[in-house]
Amino acid sequence: MHILITGAAGMIGRKLSERLAKDGSLNGKPISKMTLTDVVAPAAPAGFSGKVDARVDDLPAPGVAQKLLAEKPDVIFHLAGVVSGEAELDFEKGYRVNLESIQHLLETIRKTPDYHPKFVYTSSIAVFGAPFPPAIYDEFHLTPLTSYGTQKAMGEFLLADYNRRGFLDGVGIRLPTICVRPGKPNKAASGFFSNIIREPLAGMEAVLPVKDTVVHGHATPRSAVGFLLHAASLTRAQLGPRINITMPGVYCTVGEQIEALRRIAGDKVVARIRREPDEMIIKIVSGWSERIDPKRALELGFTVEKSFDEIIRIHIEDELGGKIAA
Amino acid sequence: MHILITGAAGMIGRKLSERLAKDGSLNGKPISKMTLTDVVAPAAPAGFSGKVDARVDDLPAPGVAQKLLAEKPDVIFHLAGVVSGEAELDFEKGYRVNLESIQHLLETIRKTPDYHPKFVYTSSIAVFGAPFPPAIYDEFHLTPLTSYGTQKAMGEFLLADYNRRGFLDGVGIRLPTICVRPGKPNKAASGFFSNIIREPLAGMEAVLPVKDTVVHGHATPRSAVGFLLHAASLTRAQLGPRINITMPGVYCTVGEQIEALRRIAGDKVVARIRREPDEMIIKIVSGWSERIDPKRALELGFTVEKSFDEIIRIHIEDELGGKIAA
Repeated sequence: MHILITGAAGMIGRKLSERLAKDGSLNGKPISKMTLTDVVAPAAPAGFSGKVDARVDDLPAPGVAQKLLAEKPDVIFHLAGVVSGEAELDFEKGYRVNLESIQHLLETIRKTPDYHPKFVYTSSIAVFGAPFPPAIYDEFHLTPLTSYGTQKAMGEFLLADYNRRGFLDGVGIRLPTICVRPGKPNKAASGFFSNIIREPLAGMEAVLPVKDTVVHGHATPRSAVGFLLHAASLTRAQLGPRINITMPGVYCTVGEQIEALRRIAGDKVVARIRREPDEMIIKIVSGWSERIDPKRALELGFTVEKSFDEIIRIHIEDELGGKIAA
Repeated sequence: MHILITGAAGMIGRKLSERLAKDGSLNGKPISKMTLTDVVAPAAPAGFSGKVDARVDDLPAPGVAQKLLAEKPDVIFHLAGVVSGEAELDFEKGYRVNLESIQHLLETIRKTPDYHPKFVYTSSIAVFGAPFPPAIYDEFHLTPLTSYGTQKAMGEFLLADYNRRGFLDGVGIRLPTICVRPGKPNKAASGFFSNIIREPLAGMEAVLPVKDTVVHGHATPRSAVGFLLHAASLTRAQLGPRINITMPGVYCTVGEQIEALRRIAGDKVVARIRREPDEMIIKIVSGWSERIDPKRALELGFTVEKSFDEIIRIHIEDELGGKIAA
């Protein structure tokens, strides 16, 4: 089996390729090759016995989709994209990378004879826009309030139509916020949800810019990889025509996040969180969806952590080698 | 005021340009010019004192949107498109005409300095896909089950994003089936809803291929023009961010359509309807939405006929000069 991952140098892409290398197989079939592409060089995953083609590509550029699909990879994980903030700042780049990339991939697949891959697309809960119901249900309409959300939603529709026409087996998964995000604090408005856990556990201070009562949904990087692998295992019969699915998450308040941290790491670690309200972030976050009711995802067998305690424990296990900074 | 109508040679386009010519103004401003474009030559509307530029254009071809928008029309009615059946038969043509046309128009508007037109887009209830709730509510999700519905839905999202970014004032209206459609019977699966009224009233036989219990929504051509004009009058403040709106219709069974015809034209006219079940049409129609709950449209002041009797009377008035074939 040959697997193509776009956006393979990103955090999820890296963890996905590492997991596939470790498993050595997908859907019960041995993986013989991985093609990894991104705008910066993706790292070849350690311990993989098959071939790796790690490439730097400008995905929406003419001819690139054709090159990536020339060997007809069996499964495509399409993770590449520019993030919400960048798509908002650079209108043209957002449409080019987030919409044209998937258009080119889908069109290349359609035009390739005897080719019918599995196509796993990462969408986002940014396809939803306020005002929200108390919990976003599977039949709630998509009214994105960002260019990023618009581009993701358009990709969902395209994928569903190409799937319906039988050009490929498609599935789109709407990811919640990934937490605890490894690495350094970044300027994303959602960054603090991870920062207030990751930084104190590493002995450093973190700023909390919103109230403790803010509700948000989280899934670990490990769960995100699990969503992708489970999506790749679902059949057309299981999915039916509604192939774009909102993923589950752990929904809790910031206060509950902090209490989980206290239970696991103690008061001294929690004391490293500094409350410093930021009106801009408060305003952005107030426009985000709070709770999700991911009925279909659960029925289809997608799983996520059971509590924020579990999310923190997985972070300590996967990123800190089991150690907390005293 | 300068108005551009795409798809101006179509049934709705023709009636819209005639109405605008008759009114002589839109939103209280006199109309000095109409640019009418279609793939076949649009007729100049009778009795219009302003300029008419009636053009034959291949709208998605390079440079065409630029030409059409060079004089910065104040209001654009974008009606052009290939219909559902054609978009399903010719995948490439459907995306080219139904998606690329609006992309080119919106991009040209975005790139034109000091230009901020009103853009009225005709979408369709084909953006919805089965299974349906008892009545499709405004927050029901879009899961088109045709390429046409997919293209219309993608156009809605694009328009909403360009509107949100302030490049134009956009509004999209999802039209129900237009009934009674003037002209000859056509092969559209929905054609019989009009055929069983129009043909008997003209002294001819019509075939009813489905059961009398089928429920469907209708609006007259006069109402469709009314929707477009009312949409053009709505302000950003009235619309808010959710600019794509499901239009109201008269919802009734085929049996109720026939009883309305009997009340207005008598048994002899009704006897011209021949029941001849067609399994293919029965199957297609069974996948369509039945009832709509167009709460927002009504709140925003869109109006439609009150009964199917009224729909028939308007047809007799507008198309038959008040006369029924005995």
